[in-house]
Amino acid sequence: MDIRNEIPVRDIERFFTKALEFSATARSLILSMLLAGFEVKRKPDQSFVTTADLRVEELLRELIERDFPDHGIIGEEYPPTRPEAPFQWVMDPIDGTEDFVQRMPAFGSILALHYRGEPVVGVIDHPVLDIRVSAAFGMGAYHNGRHVTLPDLDPDAIDGTERVMLPSRANFTKHRDDGRLFDAVARAHPNHRIYRTCFTHTCAILGMADAAIDYGNPIWDFAASRILIEEAGGKFLNVREWDVPLYRRVYGSIMGKPTLVDRLSMLFNQ
Amino acid sequence: MDIRNEIPVRDIERFFTKALEFSATARSLILSMLLAGFEVKRKPDQSFVTTADLRVEELLRELIERDFPDHGIIGEEYPPTRPEAPFQWVMDPIDGTEDFVQRMPAFGSILALHYRGEPVVGVIDHPVLDIRVSAAFGMGAYHNGRHVTLPDLDPDAIDGTERVMLPSRANFTKHRDDGRLFDAVARAHPNHRIYRTCFTHTCAILGMADAAIDYGNPIWDFAASRILIEEAGGKFLNVREWDVPLYRRVYGSIMGKPTLVDRLSMLFNQ
Repeated sequence: MDIRNEIPVRDIERFFTKALEFSATARSLILSMLLAGFEVKRKPDQSFVTTADLRVEELLRELIERDFPDHGIIGEEYPPTRPEAPFQWVMDPIDGTEDFVQRMPAFGSILALHYRGEPVVGVIDHPVLDIRVSAAFGMGAYHNGRHVTLPDLDPDAIDGTERVMLPSRANFTKHRDDGRLFDAVARAHPNHRIYRTCFTHTCAILGMADAAIDYGNPIWDFAASRILIEEAGGKFLNVREWDVPLYRRVYGSIMGKPTLVDRLSMLFNQ
Repeated sequence: MDIRNEIPVRDIERFFTKALEFSATARSLILSMLLAGFEVKRKPDQSFVTTADLRVEELLRELIERDFPDHGIIGEEYPPTRPEAPFQWVMDPIDGTEDFVQRMPAFGSILALHYRGEPVVGVIDHPVLDIRVSAAFGMGAYHNGRHVTLPDLDPDAIDGTERVMLPSRANFTKHRDDGRLFDAVARAHPNHRIYRTCFTHTCAILGMADAAIDYGNPIWDFAASRILIEEAGGKFLNVREWDVPLYRRVYGSIMGKPTLVDRLSMLFNQ
């Protein structure tokens, strides 16, 4: 049995409502900081961090602490709190910080609630694009509040025209030498797009793309996506998982229309 | 001497003003058709065309005919008019029709005026993103009406972190077998993004990316980009040009920060 069935429905409803409220508040702060300006720094791993990433995560942590003082929090920019709690909020305040810095609109804000490792609520918000996808266990998936479902793809339509969102080649080479895997996927599915943010997940969730692959990223980058894609009627598959020394655990996942997700997973099993 | 110096400045100003007016009118129609809905068909080459592409091109042609009855028009969806005229308006009413159909926001509308083959005015408009880039010969480049300039990139910064917008692998294989060129570029510049619309050109023009490569596309896809990038202070380089039997002439081009454009061009000269 699915452990999430232990959670009373009225609790899930409350978590979902709160997550949407938190996400809306984060969006306001992000948009105001885009207008007002922010500072940019490099982290030890050479990735970007801005005062906006930090302030948005601080804001979300405050809101969660206030409403759910016994829940844990895992975020990109600060150490975990209450790691032993059954409920864990997982967030990436600004996913695609490099795009945010360059004012490319596809960055997003990720917020999820997990229960004993299983996702219960997921929200991906794109402030500039005015697109928010959200889902809660047993309650469906939503695009700006409107219910969405994902049809499957006819296997005959996997003829090279299928639309696949890919990670960059850098995703395959930054932690280990998997560049050939990128080459194989790009060759097999030439109608690909690479955005380098969670907007690729959003595209798969909304059926704008038939599937999305992400690779070599930590837990928060995927935290909202499984519940979002599953509640929409799609499939989420973890195809890789490994510890990067001096960094953290990273994952490779495929999400989207089930037939295509299965087909794509074959490239990772060779 | 540059042949465009023959054109009186007040004429260029008028062309520029009109092009911006035409682009704004096209944007309104595109946004209204996104709301109202449109029909989708496949063209003989299997690419998408919608009633929105057709109606936007019809609208632009009407506006141009009314104001510039002696100018020629080259567009994606209808045959050329007055091909012998020195002034030619070149357009792709919706570039990225597949994205438009899927409601992915990065599609754009391209409009340019050429004089004896040289670009005089260029506009790329992204209705959903609310981003319009525009430029006219000798008058600079603009982002939503605000003057923009592109700094060059320090050669030492070309270390794998440079941001390059790429065409998909399908662009390299649809007309001929240049897939290995894609593989080489993707390997050499792993911090790449692939959007499959003229938004990649816009990113290069605005410095959101350091450079953009486009490949295997007809004249209208590039029609506005050279004047836009050059007026912003960047460099535009045509690296390929060939006739596709039963289709038309297609091009491969690189645009962006000069130092990086030169570096990228080396991959095409091997």
